[in-house]
Amino acid sequence: MSIEKSVEKSIKNLLSDGIKATPPSFVRGILRAASDPGVISFAGGLPNPVSFPQEELLVSMERVVKTHGSKVFQYSVTAGLPELRQYIADRYDQMFGLHLTAEHVVITTGSQQALDLIGKVLLDRGDGIIVEKPTYLAAIQAFSLYQPVFYPVELTQEGMDPAKLAVALQNPVKFVYAIPDFQNPTGLTYTAENRECIRDILKGRDVVLIEDDPYGDLRFDGERLPYIGAGALPYSIVLGTFSKTVTPGMRIGFVISENTKLLKNISIAKEAGDLHTNIFSQYLIWDYLMNNDLDAHIAKIRALYKKQAQAMMDAIERYFPPAVRYTRPHGGMFLWVTLPEGVSAMELFPKALEKKVAFVLGDPFYAHERAGENAADARCVNTMRLNFTNADCAAVEEGIRRLGEVLSAL
Amino acid sequence: MSIEKSVEKSIKNLLSDGIKATPPSFVRGILRAASDPGVISFAGGLPNPVSFPQEELLVSMERVVKTHGSKVFQYSVTAGLPELRQYIADRYDQMFGLHLTAEHVVITTGSQQALDLIGKVLLDRGDGIIVEKPTYLAAIQAFSLYQPVFYPVELTQEGMDPAKLAVALQNPVKFVYAIPDFQNPTGLTYTAENRECIRDILKGRDVVLIEDDPYGDLRFDGERLPYIGAGALPYSIVLGTFSKTVTPGMRIGFVISENTKLLKNISIAKEAGDLHTNIFSQYLIWDYLMNNDLDAHIAKIRALYKKQAQAMMDAIERYFPPAVRYTRPHGGMFLWVTLPEGVSAMELFPKALEKKVAFVLGDPFYAHERAGENAADARCVNTMRLNFTNADCAAVEEGIRRLGEVLSAL
Repeated sequence: MSIEKSVEKSIKNLLSDGIKATPPSFVRGILRAASDPGVISFAGGLPNPVSFPQEELLVSMERVVKTHGSKVFQYSVTAGLPELRQYIADRYDQMFGLHLTAEHVVITTGSQQALDLIGKVLLDRGDGIIVEKPTYLAAIQAFSLYQPVFYPVELTQEGMDPAKLAVALQNPVKFVYAIPDFQNPTGLTYTAENRECIRDILKGRDVVLIEDDPYGDLRFDGERLPYIGAGALPYSIVLGTFSKTVTPGMRIGFVISENTKLLKNISIAKEAGDLHTNIFSQYLIWDYLMNNDLDAHIAKIRALYKKQAQAMMDAIERYFPPAVRYTRPHGGMFLWVTLPEGVSAMELFPKALEKKVAFVLGDPFYAHERAGENAADARCVNTMRLNFTNADCAAVEEGIRRLGEVLSAL
Repeated sequence: MSIEKSVEKSIKNLLSDGIKATPPSFVRGILRAASDPGVISFAGGLPNPVSFPQEELLVSMERVVKTHGSKVFQYSVTAGLPELRQYIADRYDQMFGLHLTAEHVVITTGSQQALDLIGKVLLDRGDGIIVEKPTYLAAIQAFSLYQPVFYPVELTQEGMDPAKLAVALQNPVKFVYAIPDFQNPTGLTYTAENRECIRDILKGRDVVLIEDDPYGDLRFDGERLPYIGAGALPYSIVLGTFSKTVTPGMRIGFVISENTKLLKNISIAKEAGDLHTNIFSQYLIWDYLMNNDLDAHIAKIRALYKKQAQAMMDAIERYFPPAVRYTRPHGGMFLWVTLPEGVSAMELFPKALEKKVAFVLGDPFYAHERAGENAADARCVNTMRLNFTNADCAAVEEGIRRLGEVLSAL
């Protein structure tokens, strides 16, 4: 055996089963391909950079350094800046009538870290978990590291299918992971009735409900709906973030739970994972929130994304073949396209890229139908996710026009 | 069974074996106890805040926002800012003659995240790992999550005991974790001979060597020594950080490895773990490094810590009973005290706190002798770690004087 082959073999022996089970993110692969500035990309999940309050954040930077001095540069506590945690508790109390204190909030290094911490705290190899079908691919990735068994439950226009959820719960499962508002990847929102139904099904069960809510603030149509579990179920976790409303680059997310035992364990896992989240950025976001009107800022983002979403839907109506179906989101960042049966999104992808337009295939959003597991399945997937937040209306229309051309030529 | 007891029981059923095996950090518990401003604390591992280049960082903040605009607030790539990775590669090339490029560096959310990522990538439950006896308690914590079997190897004045290392390697182990410069908790540094010896022992084995090097820059006596594995062993990882030289609050650490396969897997684990490290802070540190003389800055920190370490050693000579032994570090942040046999550091602790002085017991630094496993052992541990970086010389002397009083009265 050559030296190279022997090193190759031994690296495989050294790697954990967990990392071998973890798929690299498909989207981030595509993002590199789509980073050519000529490409109109509907692939990522990036906020529109015009929404970042740069000037205000710069003012806050100077103020936190001058006001708090070395504290913003020193090591800090694991659960996060108490003032920021209190702000979050108050805001969620106000919006949802939850009776929260700073004790119920842990700051995380983006919401992605929260997913990892939940895996750490709840999952042993082989434990069952319920996810939506389809669901957020980076959640699949984060949980995969802990080698659970995924039980995907069909997502309908109303939310998670209650009958199928009840069936899935006949398996021993640790948690249900759901994105009830403007779901990633579909853009769908669970109805009030569906939420009640799921709450009733979970009531009395020793199963954690994780409601991942990065997009709830970005509603441009209709009224905000109550959470399913928060304030109602004993094992409820809500995930939030400032990534979609202020800035993703600072990686400030948070976990909310009234179950302080659960939260204490999440905190221990965080301590082992990165000690604490960037304390300068926590002071910065907190100072920004104290000195600016977050809701007025969010209202501007909503108006922007509403226009962009509308431009995408109008263009789809105009340029896509009529047999193509798509979701009509009331907020968030994505819509979900279903091509006619037999049309493969994977075959569409390179042809679209030739025309300088990118999207994400539906495939990596299915926990049990990943390319790595069954490439034949992947080729048959006829769905795709389109992001409407990171291109202006003219680019949105032009990109959809090009995609329509490719689709019509298939 | 009452409802509370039933919730209590089910939370235990829900928690993973990994989190149950993970001890909360003893030090961070003590830090809370020692946060009373009247207490002189030798307990933490905090840099002296006078060493933070606050003014320069504030200038850099404004410059990166004005120069790079929305890029510092947007999502970014997992491996880290290419310019910062290149800077690190060049610096280590210059200092150690390693032939590195940006490809060999991954930015992490502090060094602590690197420990977690290594656990993720290399450890399945029951895998063997070799650590120093004693070793960094947060490394014990990070690895414990992945439920390895620890094989601690005695640390001598020269470094890891080679004979005992060879014996430990008869077990199947995934990696050796070492802190060769100004070790935490002991302050000891591996000699050049010891490094060679360990290199020879590991040569030809499929075992990863992790050299955790947060303190190497803080040498105030003697010459910097070469790494054991970097540039010499095929499975070598070096961990570094800007936490001790620029600011810990920004959580910018890094992993260096010439083994790109290993590094690619660390990158996948990072993607699943927090997508990427705070990109604003990466730009900030990079801009600071481009516009300031890091080595001149480090020289000032060295001079400061040399004085504080000397003050501590002088005070120990003056105030501690002669039977007490202690290490004489040539750099770093800590020294290690061994009390006479039969004197318990745990019994000393509350008496010291009454006199308003805090330290960390030796106990949590022993991978196999944690209080949780065997409280009787913990009470017998006659060692303690003293930090000399976060108190000025007068406070250092006064704190040691008080500790000496308690010791003499035992």
